[in-house]
Amino acid sequence: MDNINKYVVSVAENARKSALMLMKANTHIKNSALKTMINLIGTQRDKIKTENKIDLDNGAKNGLSKAMIDRLKLNDKRIDGIITSLKELIELPDPVSETIKKWQRPNGMNIEKVRVPIGVIGIIYESRPNVTVDAASLCLKTGNATILRGGKEAFYSNLVLTKILQDALRQTGLPTESIQLIETTDRAAVGEMLKLSQYIDLIIPRGGEGLIRRVVNESTIPVIKHYKGVCHLYADSELDTEQAVSIIINAKVQRPGVCNALETLLVNQNIADTFIPKICNALAKENVEIRGDEKVCNLFKNAVPATEEDWYTEYLDLILSVKTVKNVDEAIEHIEKYGSRHSDGILTTDTKTAKYFLSGVDSAAVYHNVSTRFTDGGQFGMGAEIGVSTDKLHARGPMGLEELTSYKFIVTGNGQIRT
Amino acid sequence: MDNINKYVVSVAENARKSALMLMKANTHIKNSALKTMINLIGTQRDKIKTENKIDLDNGAKNGLSKAMIDRLKLNDKRIDGIITSLKELIELPDPVSETIKKWQRPNGMNIEKVRVPIGVIGIIYESRPNVTVDAASLCLKTGNATILRGGKEAFYSNLVLTKILQDALRQTGLPTESIQLIETTDRAAVGEMLKLSQYIDLIIPRGGEGLIRRVVNESTIPVIKHYKGVCHLYADSELDTEQAVSIIINAKVQRPGVCNALETLLVNQNIADTFIPKICNALAKENVEIRGDEKVCNLFKNAVPATEEDWYTEYLDLILSVKTVKNVDEAIEHIEKYGSRHSDGILTTDTKTAKYFLSGVDSAAVYHNVSTRFTDGGQFGMGAEIGVSTDKLHARGPMGLEELTSYKFIVTGNGQIRT
Repeated sequence: MDNINKYVVSVAENARKSALMLMKANTHIKNSALKTMINLIGTQRDKIKTENKIDLDNGAKNGLSKAMIDRLKLNDKRIDGIITSLKELIELPDPVSETIKKWQRPNGMNIEKVRVPIGVIGIIYESRPNVTVDAASLCLKTGNATILRGGKEAFYSNLVLTKILQDALRQTGLPTESIQLIETTDRAAVGEMLKLSQYIDLIIPRGGEGLIRRVVNESTIPVIKHYKGVCHLYADSELDTEQAVSIIINAKVQRPGVCNALETLLVNQNIADTFIPKICNALAKENVEIRGDEKVCNLFKNAVPATEEDWYTEYLDLILSVKTVKNVDEAIEHIEKYGSRHSDGILTTDTKTAKYFLSGVDSAAVYHNVSTRFTDGGQFGMGAEIGVSTDKLHARGPMGLEELTSYKFIVTGNGQIRT
Repeated sequence: MDNINKYVVSVAENARKSALMLMKANTHIKNSALKTMINLIGTQRDKIKTENKIDLDNGAKNGLSKAMIDRLKLNDKRIDGIITSLKELIELPDPVSETIKKWQRPNGMNIEKVRVPIGVIGIIYESRPNVTVDAASLCLKTGNATILRGGKEAFYSNLVLTKILQDALRQTGLPTESIQLIETTDRAAVGEMLKLSQYIDLIIPRGGEGLIRRVVNESTIPVIKHYKGVCHLYADSELDTEQAVSIIINAKVQRPGVCNALETLLVNQNIADTFIPKICNALAKENVEIRGDEKVCNLFKNAVPATEEDWYTEYLDLILSVKTVKNVDEAIEHIEKYGSRHSDGILTTDTKTAKYFLSGVDSAAVYHNVSTRFTDGGQFGMGAEIGVSTDKLHARGPMGLEELTSYKFIVTGNGQIRT
């Protein structure tokens, strides 16, 4: 592409224009567009798979790993998954136009705080092409225009999906440029995009830590980050052992590759002698490798000594670091130092200690006698989510439809002036 | 200072430690600290004025403008103003620990969304030393630790005020490093501060556009921006003339140097012939200079022709740009192109046109038959404010105590695991 800057600016300008129209779109028309998307994805299934095959073939040629190729793949099952998500999204309430608060001032003027779309949202993501539909549809439902920048490995898949979404917008009578893909794989396009704060209101990067750090370093647009989850459970001295074992196994094993899976177990030293062998044996049966401190290695012979690095690590795998701590304070300090403020829990029958932990740990979600695996928009009952924010500004934890909105103040009166 | 990086990191580390303690401080102890601040500022009034005199003398030596010197000055009236603000702050409700929402999931686990402090807030500001107390006290009331970076012109004033605030913290038993000043005027300190996202959760720049742009360009920490207010009023063809004149005069004249003052008046062409001479004469009586489009210049001989630049300008002075527009759509388009999404209003007796304008203009506050001068935390009934956000993320419009908080999810149960 000759002039990347010009191209990206024109995409962003068109997005802003579309956003101003989408701002006023009602729920019915937005849902109609989502329904049309379902139809078109269904009828153009073969075309999607054909374009996806180009990406898969290129990926194989370029030596992508098997895991990468798998993530890239759009088979019937995955296309069905995309359609199911769209169907669920239609059923969710539209937060836009909701009156958050309403009051009258002594001078008689009325103030209404009303939920409005954010405006233009840039999504920068890696290889999974289903993000194209997921992110764009969540943004559409909340009246936001989307600029999508997918990974180059999924270029043809993203392109065909975007064209289908745009067809659906056209058929519904909504501006087609409500959803746009950056149609070049030139890396410079991302840099250009991240400087256009006059058109783009928010950037959501979805991918590994490297991608997110690059975006944060370059962006002058607000970014909501979805960093890693180094999640902890602290097994207190007052323990329901069976319940604790069941929660720890679930948090580590049920789906180890996700951000809310357990990465470090902290055990109160008073119960170490009995509890550590018990839990380590149970974990070993599930093929979990234990990396422990000295005490853990003494109590469980198959444990590998943990390094300093281990305590910071999000394994996303069947590996667990285990450490003994003196008390709840040491547990909180460990989480503060090594954690990622994502999801951390305490296992105890002592309500007082639980409260102390829940208020002392500064994480998006804190748990008492519950698996950390519940940090998720669906599990929290929010419906869809665009990710789990590890930021504290605007959205923290699961980021659903409401978190894709802003607000404005509508002030009405009959001639009020300031004196 | 030998090693700026080391110094700023140590300040930030101490702020983070203090923030973890402040997170758990109750309202009573925070208010006690505010009361002690009031006492100490009262008894150390002379010391404050002595230190302030060093800044004033340096300013005079360095050729600061009269306006700058005035802003720098801490006289008895201003010190009284600081004390009054602190007294008002004590009376405001503490948003921390408030349950925003509470629900139970079908599996029996309980989720509570609870308001918590943001953590560590960095305030970067220019010459007015009263910001030191204002910003630090608002952050303290909401349980946040503050790192202050004031302008070099106010260095000694900021230093003595910070010491007094720290004395108050010490006497109350709160961590003294809850409020810290960057005690060097080296500009490199700001750059170091803006990279410490592991310790600092939010940066609020308070000052001119140049300062804010620098902060946005360099920061990897979320920034909430308080940019300029190029505020508009649109006088529709259906008009209560007397009311409209009164509102326009108020919005322009009552305090022209602030961000919610009127900068551009848009007039429907159908009423131009009568309304433009009327309003321009009324404004001229208040010493307002008119910069108009061709039609305005024809109708009001003292008008100066407006340049393209004028429509973008925040005068902060007794100058108003005036333009005729075809209809409400052209008014909305003008505001979208030239405005700053701060405060914009419509003057009309036609409710339908008003609704159309209020939903079509994408600004933090939109007004119908009310002066734009009300965009202010106090006027909105929020109590104190740390500024007026022109961002759409986290806080939009007046940013009060609630907007200085985040939230966390507290999940409690009895052994829930994910299946």
